[in-house]
Amino acid sequence: MAAFLRNHWYVAAWSAEIDRDLTGRVLLGDTVCLYRAEDGTPVALENRCAHRNLPLSEGRLVGDAVECGYHGMVFDCDGVCTHVPGMETPPDWARVRRYPVAERNGWLFIWMGEADDADENLVPDFQERIPDPDWLKVSGHLTVGCGYRLILDNLLDLSHLTYVHSSTTGNAALAEEARITTETGGDSVQVVRRTWDIPAAPAYAEYGGFKGSVDRWQMSRYMAPSYIRVNNGALDAGASITDADIDREQGGWGFVVYHGLTPETETTTHQFWCMAIPERMAPGHGAARDLFIERMHNIIAEDLVVYEAQQKTIDLDADALDRDANPRGTIPADDGLLAMRRIIRRLHGEEKRG
Amino acid sequence: MAAFLRNHWYVAAWSAEIDRDLTGRVLLGDTVCLYRAEDGTPVALENRCAHRNLPLSEGRLVGDAVECGYHGMVFDCDGVCTHVPGMETPPDWARVRRYPVAERNGWLFIWMGEADDADENLVPDFQERIPDPDWLKVSGHLTVGCGYRLILDNLLDLSHLTYVHSSTTGNAALAEEARITTETGGDSVQVVRRTWDIPAAPAYAEYGGFKGSVDRWQMSRYMAPSYIRVNNGALDAGASITDADIDREQGGWGFVVYHGLTPETETTTHQFWCMAIPERMAPGHGAARDLFIERMHNIIAEDLVVYEAQQKTIDLDADALDRDANPRGTIPADDGLLAMRRIIRRLHGEEKRG
Amino acid sequence: MAAFLRNHWYVAAWSAEIDRDLTGRVLLGDTVCLYRAEDGTPVALENRCAHRNLPLSEGRLVGDAVECGYHGMVFDCDGVCTHVPGMETPPDWARVRRYPVAERNGWLFIWMGEADDADENLVPDFQERIPDPDWLKVSGHLTVGCGYRLILDNLLDLSHLTYVHSSTTGNAALAEEARITTETGGDSVQVVRRTWDIPAAPAYAEYGGFKGSVDRWQMSRYMAPSYIRVNNGALDAGASITDADIDREQGGWGFVVYHGLTPETETTTHQFWCMAIPERMAPGHGAARDLFIERMHNIIAEDLVVYEAQQKTIDLDADALDRDANPRGTIPADDGLLAMRRIIRRLHGEEKRG
Repeated sequence: MAAFLRNHWYVAAWSAEIDRDLTGRVLLGDTVCLYRAEDGTPVALENRCAHRNLPLSEGRLVGDAVECGYHGMVFDCDGVCTHVPGMETPPDWARVRRYPVAERNGWLFIWMGEADDADENLVPDFQERIPDPDWLKVSGHLTVGCGYRLILDNLLDLSHLTYVHSSTTGNAALAEEARITTETGGDSVQVVRRTWDIPAAPAYAEYGGFKGSVDRWQMSRYMAPSYIRVNNGALDAGASITDADIDREQGGWGFVVYHGLTPETETTTHQFWCMAIPERMAPGHGAARDLFIERMHNIIAEDLVVYEAQQKTIDLDADALDRDANPRGTIPADDGLLAMRRIIRRLHGEEKRG
Repeated sequence: MAAFLRNHWYVAAWSAEIDRDLTGRVLLGDTVCLYRAEDGTPVALENRCAHRNLPLSEGRLVGDAVECGYHGMVFDCDGVCTHVPGMETPPDWARVRRYPVAERNGWLFIWMGEADDADENLVPDFQERIPDPDWLKVSGHLTVGCGYRLILDNLLDLSHLTYVHSSTTGNAALAEEARITTETGGDSVQVVRRTWDIPAAPAYAEYGGFKGSVDRWQMSRYMAPSYIRVNNGALDAGASITDADIDREQGGWGFVVYHGLTPETETTTHQFWCMAIPERMAPGHGAARDLFIERMHNIIAEDLVVYEAQQKTIDLDADALDRDANPRGTIPADDGLLAMRRIIRRLHGEEKRG
Repeated sequence: MAAFLRNHWYVAAWSAEIDRDLTGRVLLGDTVCLYRAEDGTPVALENRCAHRNLPLSEGRLVGDAVECGYHGMVFDCDGVCTHVPGMETPPDWARVRRYPVAERNGWLFIWMGEADDADENLVPDFQERIPDPDWLKVSGHLTVGCGYRLILDNLLDLSHLTYVHSSTTGNAALAEEARITTETGGDSVQVVRRTWDIPAAPAYAEYGGFKGSVDRWQMSRYMAPSYIRVNNGALDAGASITDADIDREQGGWGFVVYHGLTPETETTTHQFWCMAIPERMAPGHGAARDLFIERMHNIIAEDLVVYEAQQKTIDLDADALDRDANPRGTIPADDGLLAMRRIIRRLHGEEKRG
C-alpha cells in the first residue's frame, strides 16, 4: 500500500480550475470534492457521502453547502450534515472530512494531515511569478502515469535537457561541462549547474539573441514534500554572475519553472506546472508567441514520455521498492535526487513516530 | 473471493434474448452457455469445453446439441458428451455442468445451486405484468459496474427519486414528507413510502393529469436473493387508499417496476429491468409514446451513473468489506436495505451450514 | 509468478524486423532492446538504463552503442557503459545485461539464460524453407493474449482444422478418420495424423486440383522449449507414402508451418509464424496470389480467437494451475500435448536443480 507524507500542503488545483461547479479529484488516495462558496472561498470536502458513499461531486451546490445527488443529505463547508430529508435532526455521524485549503499565487493548496495541524504560514509561496503581469506564463495540469518521485528526479538532474529537449533548451555542452553543486538545508535541496563559455542551446540562440558562446546557469530547488522551482539564466560568456543571480535572475535570457506534484496513487501523479518568462524576453504577439507557447507545452510532453516509460519498466522489476526507481548505482549528478529521497524518508519517519 | 448465494433461481436472460444462437454469459462467476433446443426449450450448460476449455458458445448447434468449436466434441442438452471425433465412445469425464432453467413471465431463470435441489415451484413469478398485453413495458438488460447490493439499495430507498430523477418522478415533498414503514417477512422485505397532499412530480402532472396536490404511494418489495418489485401510484389528495391499493394498484397514475439482479462478478451485475404501465395511462402512439419510452430508459441511465460512481468510491476504501457500501451510520430510510442485508447474511449462513 | 524455461534460444524477432532503429520488447518477462550494429550484427541488451530505468529503446544509436535518452549514458554492444556525461570514467556498476543472439533462416534468436551457457550449435534451424526462394512464405508476428502452451496445444492436435478452419484446410473426415501416432524423443514430440481415401478439404481441392479422394498426412513436431514445425501433404488416394514423405514432402499439394513462440508474460505470447509452400503449388501472381496470402493470414486469425477465448475462460477457473488449461480428462488426440507438457516440466526441474 502506498504511504504518502500527509502533514503537508499539496496543490489540489489551479485556483482558476475551481469555481461554483463541484470537482472530484483523488489526492494521496483520498477522494476530494472541491468548490467555491458564494463569496469565493475555496472548500475541500471528503468526496464520499457519509451515508451511501456517492461522491459528493455528483451532487449540487445549494448556497455554500453540498447536497448529495443520491438521497439529498446536505453538508456544509465544514463537512457537517445540516439536513437529512425526512428527518428533523441529522444524526451525529453524518459528517464528512473537511480539508483545510489555502490559496497562494494561483494555486489552491490542500492540507492532507489532521485539520488542526494545518498552518497557513507554511503554505508554499515560492511560485511568485504566477500572478506577476510582467511575466508570460505557460501552464497546465496533467495526470501522469508515474510515481511523484520520478518527476522530482527529472527536475533535480537537468542534464536531461541535452537528451530530452535537444531541440529547445539543451545541447551537448550543457550535460558534459557543467559544474554541479548540491546543498541540502532542512527540508529542501538546491542543485546548481553552471556552464561557462558554451554554445547557446537552440531556444537561447533564437529567443535570447546570443551570437557567441554563453555562460549559463540552472538552479533547481526541491522543497518537501514535492515542489520544485527551477531558475534558468544565461549571459554572454565572460560576464560576472553572483549567487543571487543564479537564484533569481535570468540574465540575458532565461525562465523560471514551477512544479507542484501531488500523488494521486502510488503510480499516478497530478502535475501542476508553470513556465514563466519575463514578457520582455518572450515573443510579444501573433504566430511567434503562439509557437513559443506551443514549444513550452512540448517540453512538458517530452518529459512525460520519459516518466511513463520509466514507470512501466520499473513495474517489470519485482525488486523495485515502492515501485520507485531502482538504480544499480549512482553518479555525482544524482546527489540532488538522493538528498530529496533522504528528506522524504526522514519525514516519513517523523510522521510515523508522531 | 466473491461468495454468492447459489441455491436460488436467478434471471439468466430475457426469454427473447435466447434463441438458436449460442449466448455466453458469466453468472455468479460461472461462465454459462445459453440456447434453445429445436422445440424451443431453453438450455444452460457450463460454457467451457471439458476438454480444452474453449467456451462452448464459440461452437455451433447441431440439432439440440452443442459442437465445440475447437475439436468438435459434442455435448447434449444434459451436458453429456455424445461424440468425440475419432473415438467410438466418449470417455466418462467428458461432460459439462447442466444448469436447470425455467421460464416465467418473460424471464429465463437459471438455478445456480446443485441441479437436484432445483424446485420449479420456487421460480419467481411476481413480474406478472410483463406478459400482460394491456400494459406497456419498457425494459432492458444492462451489465452494471457495481455489486448487486448497491442496486438493491437504490430500489429500497425511493427518496432518491427526488435527487436522481427530479425531472420525471421525483420532487422535494416526496423525500421530505414521506411516512415510511418497513416490514420483513421470511426472505422478503417490504418498504412503503406514503405521502399526503403533495405536489405532483413532473411525470405525474404530465401523464397523470393531476391538477392539484396528490396522495402518493410507493411500495418496494425485495425478494431474496435479488429481486425487486416496486409499485407506484397516486390519487387526488384526500382519496381513501387501502393497503391492497398500495401493493397492487396505481390509482390515477402510476407504474410497476421489476428488477432481476444477477451478479456477474463481485463488482459487476446483470440488471434485467422492466417498467410496466397500464396502456390506458401511457401515451398511445407516435412521438409522445416514443418520448415516454425514452424517459423510462433515461431513468435507468440516471441510476446507473450513481451505482458506478458509488462502486468506484467504495473501491478506494480499504475498509469496505466485500467491496460493499461502507456507511458511517444509518437513518430510518435505511431500514429496508439493512433488512435486505440481514436476510442475505442469514441465507449465506444457511448455505454454509448446508 | 510466472516461471519460464530460460536456458534456451527463443525467437526475439524476425531478422527483418530489426535494423538501425531501437526495438523494445518484453521476452520472458525481461525487457530487451534489439538493434543492429553498423556491420549488421544483431545486438540484444537489457532495455533498462542502469541509472534511472528508462528503456534504452527510448534513446538513440551512436555508432554501435546506445545512448540513453534521459541523461546520455552510453552503453556498448556488450552492455558496458563507456561514457557518462560530465564524468571522466564511468562507474563499474554502469552496465546492462547483454543477451547472446544468433540468426538462422530468417529468425533472430536470443539466449535467455546465463550468457556463458549459450551454445550457437543449439540454435534452431528447422525452419529451413524461410530463406528458400523457391517457396512462397506468408508470415507474421503477433502478440497473443494467452500462455504459450495453449498455442502449442493447437498445433499438436490438428483435428482442430475441421472445426476452426473448415473453409480452407479442414473437413469432417480429417477429424473423424485419422490414425494418430505420437512419438517422444529427447526434447521433442512428433505427432503424425494420417487419413486415407477422404474428400479433399476446400483448399486442397481448389489449389491442389484433386478431383477425387485423397490420402493426406500432417506431421507436427514440437521442439523444446516452444517451437513447432508442421508438414502437410496429400496425394490421390491409393498412392504409396513413406515416413520420409510424411516428414518432408507435400506430395501433390501441401505446405509447411513454422512457429516460434516466445512467452512475453505468463498469459501473453509472441507468436512468430510462417506458412511456406512450394511456389509451384501456389498461385503465381495477381489477385489469386493475393487471395491465397489473405487466406493464410485468416487461418492464423481464426486460431487466435480460440487461444484468447480459452485463456479468458481459464482465468475464471481458480483451480487452473499456472493459468494453464485445466481439462477434465484426456483423449488419445491429447497424447502430443501431454508429452509436450511432460518435457517442459522435466526441463523446469533440470533448470531448478542446476
